[in-house]
Amino acid sequence: MLKLSQIFARKRTPQETQSWTGAALAPSFIILITAFALWFMPPPTGLEVSAWHLLIIFLGTIIGIILKPLPMGAIATLGLSLCVITNLIPLQQSLSSFSSPIVWLVLSAFFIARGFVKTGLGSRIAYYFMTFLGRSSLGLSYGLVLTDFFLSPVIPSNTARGGGIIFPIVQSLSNEYGSSPNTNSQRKIGAFLTQVAFQANLVTSAMFLTAFAGNPLAAKLAKEVGVIMNWGTWAIAGIVPGLVHLALLPLFLFFIYPPTLKKTPEAPELARKKLKEMGPLSFHEITMLLIFALLLVLWIFGGNFGVEPTTAALLGLSLLLFTGVLSWDDLLQEKAAWDTFFWLAILLGLAGALSDYGIIKWFGSGVENFVGLLSKPVAFAVLSILYFYCHYFFASGTAHITSLYVMFLIAIVSTGIPAPLATFVLAVFASLSSGLTHYGTGAAPVFFGGNFIPVRTWWRLGFLCSLLTLLVWSVVGGLWWKFLGYW
Amino acid sequence: MLKLSQIFARKRTPQETQSWTGAALAPSFIILITAFALWFMPPPTGLEVSAWHLLIIFLGTIIGIILKPLPMGAIATLGLSLCVITNLIPLQQSLSSFSSPIVWLVLSAFFIARGFVKTGLGSRIAYYFMTFLGRSSLGLSYGLVLTDFFLSPVIPSNTARGGGIIFPIVQSLSNEYGSSPNTNSQRKIGAFLTQVAFQANLVTSAMFLTAFAGNPLAAKLAKEVGVIMNWGTWAIAGIVPGLVHLALLPLFLFFIYPPTLKKTPEAPELARKKLKEMGPLSFHEITMLLIFALLLVLWIFGGNFGVEPTTAALLGLSLLLFTGVLSWDDLLQEKAAWDTFFWLAILLGLAGALSDYGIIKWFGSGVENFVGLLSKPVAFAVLSILYFYCHYFFASGTAHITSLYVMFLIAIVSTGIPAPLATFVLAVFASLSSGLTHYGTGAAPVFFGGNFIPVRTWWRLGFLCSLLTLLVWSVVGGLWWKFLGYW
Repeated sequence: MLKLSQIFARKRTPQETQSWTGAALAPSFIILITAFALWFMPPPTGLEVSAWHLLIIFLGTIIGIILKPLPMGAIATLGLSLCVITNLIPLQQSLSSFSSPIVWLVLSAFFIARGFVKTGLGSRIAYYFMTFLGRSSLGLSYGLVLTDFFLSPVIPSNTARGGGIIFPIVQSLSNEYGSSPNTNSQRKIGAFLTQVAFQANLVTSAMFLTAFAGNPLAAKLAKEVGVIMNWGTWAIAGIVPGLVHLALLPLFLFFIYPPTLKKTPEAPELARKKLKEMGPLSFHEITMLLIFALLLVLWIFGGNFGVEPTTAALLGLSLLLFTGVLSWDDLLQEKAAWDTFFWLAILLGLAGALSDYGIIKWFGSGVENFVGLLSKPVAFAVLSILYFYCHYFFASGTAHITSLYVMFLIAIVSTGIPAPLATFVLAVFASLSSGLTHYGTGAAPVFFGGNFIPVRTWWRLGFLCSLLTLLVWSVVGGLWWKFLGYW
Repeated sequence: MLKLSQIFARKRTPQETQSWTGAALAPSFIILITAFALWFMPPPTGLEVSAWHLLIIFLGTIIGIILKPLPMGAIATLGLSLCVITNLIPLQQSLSSFSSPIVWLVLSAFFIARGFVKTGLGSRIAYYFMTFLGRSSLGLSYGLVLTDFFLSPVIPSNTARGGGIIFPIVQSLSNEYGSSPNTNSQRKIGAFLTQVAFQANLVTSAMFLTAFAGNPLAAKLAKEVGVIMNWGTWAIAGIVPGLVHLALLPLFLFFIYPPTLKKTPEAPELARKKLKEMGPLSFHEITMLLIFALLLVLWIFGGNFGVEPTTAALLGLSLLLFTGVLSWDDLLQEKAAWDTFFWLAILLGLAGALSDYGIIKWFGSGVENFVGLLSKPVAFAVLSILYFYCHYFFASGTAHITSLYVMFLIAIVSTGIPAPLATFVLAVFASLSSGLTHYGTGAAPVFFGGNFIPVRTWWRLGFLCSLLTLLVWSVVGGLWWKFLGYW
């Protein structure tokens, strides 16, 4: 059955409670010693000493985030403190990102997402789709995809959405059909549903500014190079390739990785039973639904009458508190929200400082000379595909964005590709590429932990799905963005 | 024995997990309806409509914080959202306090305080003082006072300090001497130690900017009327009356509320046994101690070489993370820190907006006319004593400061009393007055919950202690501040 607390407990424990481990000490010392040596070297031509020092701290932080000797938040805190202590960034400015509306949009959305889990509305939606899509394994998988899609605009943690709401339903369904790793019957239906739900989770993450915590980071970084991606423009650019991708994904996996159980005539009945157990919509569920609708309306149309997305989110959060759907303690317990709040704000602050010090401009002019040798479309294709497959080295879309986004963006734009196009493609590629491995994003270890799919198969499927991803987003996306005038 | 987790669990549960309760609905509706009616009334002379609206939201928030239909953070979030939605405060400005260095000083200090509890260093210090002060009940009580004093500069939650570190030791000592509510032997020693530790906790809270979360709030508000209170000036102004008060307090309570057990010859031995059980200082305890020393040095002297207190705190926090004394998860779990961070920042933001809208000036000019009728010293005495005893209506020093601090400050200053003097007196009175009741501050219910002292006695002792407080801080404080040139 649905064991949300267990899922979350398992998911968070390994990385969050981690302190220093022996294995982490070696890389940490190498980073520190290298950074210390570089600190006293003369800066490269075109960079002032202070900019050089900031770059060293920034790169040290990035490498720390990738190697993870400590959790991301701790590494970011160290990076921030170093910048302040060395007077590279004044204290007040270093903290200024903590009042950035984009950071507050993410924080509020995390809290709002808790309401879907707490009220049970998320599960109810999944069971509802099952009642009319559940007659076959394929239909069931579409039900999961639809649920994820429906929740994605308002749940910026793909881990909470995929791991917290969808995965328990996958487990519950697999149990019902006797598909389990214990009885060696993973391929019956569990493995198929797991992979569809996991890959779809990453597609929806790419479709809305508020569907994945890394997206606002990309949007903020894009602003540094002069491209505005707000909630509306993101949703419009993403909706067509995203929907096509979601429509094809279950079919594609049904073809390359079919479940042995094709018909599931009892599923709609099971879903109806579950819905019956749940009883009619509770007051809190109805409230949640109304606030969700209000939020969507405000996010889509609010700009016309001066309501910023963050204002809308704060309003939604206030209403949830006021109506008692969420208690204050629910917010305080939402550790993932505070974690994200912390590192997101610090990374934004550091990235902003890089720009202030002229480091991004300096890097850009260096890259221009180099990439100028390639023709425009070839350079775009090579760089964006390279960017995509770099995700083999990342355990989070956010780390991917923080480390590589601006560099690749500058490189691609310098070839003459329109900036809005490159900005959006790289932004969505960060989440779309997270399906390559079983550690590529927070939701991955949760789904993988269901033990339905062996690791080699997981990687093979991840690679095959990445081909579908690149095909859909280049062909359908390309045409759609042409139509929208992006190029 | 020391049951820290239980203490914290019990302390937080009642108010933090609270959602709407029947009893809270009535006052909430009265507030809402009143506010709604006032909203459409014409503003008082001298206030613009927008300032009037802001004042209504602010007062509604304050009354909400006092009546507590929801926890303070939830009320503050509602107040903030209302201001943003009604366009009274622009979104970006409304969030700006979240990057206020003073808020970050408090947040960091909360995290640092966790290190004292986690490493066991707090308890070790208490046992250490016991080994050479513990021969008598009076000596034991001085040991507790010294421990609290020693920890106060770095633990801004008097609840964590008093409730988390000192109270478990009070319980442990009372157990050892067979003083327990179960055997009707409270007066043997437990009741006496409880009351000394509780009252001393509030004295130390008044002595350092970082000893109580409300202090930075007072300092920030004081800035609005042009008085700077930084870490150093606060400590200097508070140290003499504070130490005299701490020296007299155990004697005073020993005289008016004596323990029946006067001699405790076994206590030093017991403490030595506990210390032996603890073994030698662990690596983490030594690290904690060194970082604590570094922090004190930087807070006291850092201003001379440009290190702000918040920078020092961030450095200390980073070192604790880096050395593994604190894990990242310790920070995320520190709910009280996030709670304080949230409401403190919002209240600061609202208070700042009141000033921007000219409301404080408007209120001040109104009060001046009224208070001008009293002579200078009489007005000061009457107003500050009134401010002190208002705490019967408050469950937290911070609520006291938020609601009344600026008003009383303006009123007193308008009589001609020097602003720095009035500013400091009112600031320390907020914590000093918290000992009046068994609910006056977060630590109060913890100590009271030990069940050593019946409620009527608690109030009687609170009142008697308040006379000592007023005597010490007016006579000793008055002379000291004269010497420092405050008046």
